[in-house]
Amino acid sequence: MIGSVTEEKVRVRYAETDQMGHAYYANYLIWFEQARSAFFRERGLPYKEIEERGYKFPVVEAHARYKGEVKYDDEITIRVWVGELKRAAVRIDYEVVLGGKVVTEGYTWHVCVGSDFKAVTLPLFLRELVEPTESRLE
Amino acid sequence: MIGSVTEEKVRVRYAETDQMGHAYYANYLIWFEQARSAFFRERGLPYKEIEERGYKFPVVEAHARYKGEVKYDDEITIRVWVGELKRAAVRIDYEVVLGGKVVTEGYTWHVCVGSDFKAVTLPLFLRELVEPTESRLE
Amino acid sequence: MIGSVTEEKVRVRYAETDQMGHAYYANYLIWFEQARSAFFRERGLPYKEIEERGYKFPVVEAHARYKGEVKYDDEITIRVWVGELKRAAVRIDYEVVLGGKVVTEGYTWHVCVGSDFKAVTLPLFLRELVEPTESRLE
Amino acid sequence: MIGSVTEEKVRVRYAETDQMGHAYYANYLIWFEQARSAFFRERGLPYKEIEERGYKFPVVEAHARYKGEVKYDDEITIRVWVGELKRAAVRIDYEVVLGGKVVTEGYTWHVCVGSDFKAVTLPLFLRELVEPTESRLE
Repeated sequence: MIGSVTEEKVRVRYAETDQMGHAYYANYLIWFEQARSAFFRERGLPYKEIEERGYKFPVVEAHARYKGEVKYDDEITIRVWVGELKRAAVRIDYEVVLGGKVVTEGYTWHVCVGSDFKAVTLPLFLRELVEPTESRLE
Repeated sequence: MIGSVTEEKVRVRYAETDQMGHAYYANYLIWFEQARSAFFRERGLPYKEIEERGYKFPVVEAHARYKGEVKYDDEITIRVWVGELKRAAVRIDYEVVLGGKVVTEGYTWHVCVGSDFKAVTLPLFLRELVEPTESRLE
Repeated sequence: MIGSVTEEKVRVRYAETDQMGHAYYANYLIWFEQARSAFFRERGLPYKEIEERGYKFPVVEAHARYKGEVKYDDEITIRVWVGELKRAAVRIDYEVVLGGKVVTEGYTWHVCVGSDFKAVTLPLFLRELVEPTESRLE
Repeated sequence: MIGSVTEEKVRVRYAETDQMGHAYYANYLIWFEQARSAFFRERGLPYKEIEERGYKFPVVEAHARYKGEVKYDDEITIRVWVGELKRAAVRIDYEVVLGGKVVTEGYTWHVCVGSDFKAVTLPLFLRELVEPTESRLE
C-alpha cells in the first residue's frame, strides 16, 4: 500500500440487484469507481479537475473476487488505496466491507493519458497526491 | 402533496455519464428509486421490510421532464414526496435539485401487490406511514 | 404516426432484472434508446453520424406505462416511430411487445441542439429522414 | 479450451458510453454475461432452465484486460468458451472482437450452487453440455 486509505459508503440500490436477489457483479466495478472518485476528492483534487487539466485515467485491467453476498439496501463500505505506482500507470486496490467482513476485493490498473489518449508519465501533482514527498522521506 | 418531503443526496458517478458529457436520462429513474428508498427508511419502514411483510410496489408508470443538465461529480438532491394516494396505488413525485434549481422533475405510479403480484388495497401501516392519522385530523 | 415503424429485438439480460424477478423499470428507457438508434440506422443515417454533423438530440421528457412484465431471457420487440414533429423538437413513440402483447408503451421528447447545446431548427436532412417529401405529397 | 466457442454480437448502446467517449468498463462484464447466456442457449439449455432445475452459477471472480476502445454504435463480437472445469466450478473465457482485433479479454469463475446457495458438484447434464462425452473420447 502506498499512502493512505479512503473509505466510501454506498447504499445498494434496487436497480443493482438481480433476480438471484443479490447485487449484480458488474456493479462492484461501478462502486470501485465511486470510491476512486472519493479518493481523489478527499486528497483535494477531484478527478473532474484532473480531466480539466488534460489528463485521463482509462482502466486497462479490472479484477474482482467475490467472497460474500451483498443485498438491496445494505450499506457497504468501499476501502480504496493505491497499490502500485509505475511511471505512467497506477494500480488501485479495493475492499468492499459489510458487517465487518470483506465481501469483495479487487483492483483496477489505469494508465495516465493526455487528451490524445496517448500514455504519458504521471504528472508530479498526481504523484504527490498519492505519495506525498514528506511521507516518502519518513 | 400528502405528508412531508424527504431529501436524498446523490453524487453523480462517471458510469452515469454518456458521451454527450451529461448524466444519461435513464439514470434519473434509478435516482428516483434511491430517493423512494430513503423516503421509506426515514419514516421507519425500509422498503426491504415492506417486501418482507409480503408487499411489493412495482412501477406502472414513470415520467421525467429534464430541464437542465447534470454532470459527473455533481452532488444533486432528490426531493421526494407522495403526490396522490388511491386505494391500491400511490403516485410519488420527485424533483432533482442542483445549485438551487430544479433540473428535473418526475413521478412514478406504483400499485401495491401481494406476493402473487395481484393488486391489493394499501395496508393500513403503509397508509399511516405516508399520511399519519393525526396530520389528517389537523 | 409520421412515416413508418422500425422494429428492434432485444434479449433481456440478467443484469437488467432485479430481485422482484422482472426487468427493472429504468432499463426500458435504455431499450427505447437502442430502438431509436435502430430507427435512424434503418433510414440510412446512424445517430452517430448525426452527432458527427454537429447535432444532438438530448431527451427533454420521457414517459413509460408498464402494463405487463418482462423477464430474463425474454426476447422483446421494441416498435419505434415518430409521433410528432415540431420546428426544433421531435416526439418518438415506443411499444414493447412480448408474445404478441404490448407490455409497455412510452415516448421521449427530444430537442435538436447544435454543438453548443442551443436548440436549433431540425435540419432538412433530418426532417426528410423522418417524413420523406414524397410521402407527404401522397 | 474445453469444447467449442460461441459468438455473440452486441451493438454498443449510448447508455453504455461515458463522458470519455468510450464504453464504460463495467459494461464489458454485462456483455460477458450476455455471451454466457448465448453459450448455454446455443447448446440447447438456456441458463433460465438451469435455474429452473434448481442450480445457479454466481460469479466468484471476474477479470478483464482492456486493450482497445469500443465506442457507441460499434458492433462487437464476444467470443465465449469454457476455459476450465472443476468439480463444482467453471471458468468461462471471453474475447471482445472489433474489426478483427481482440480489444478486450477476460474470464469469470462461477461456482455451481443449489437453491440454498451452497456449492454442489456440477450436475452431469451441465458437464455434458460443456464437454460432450463423445468429444472427450475422440
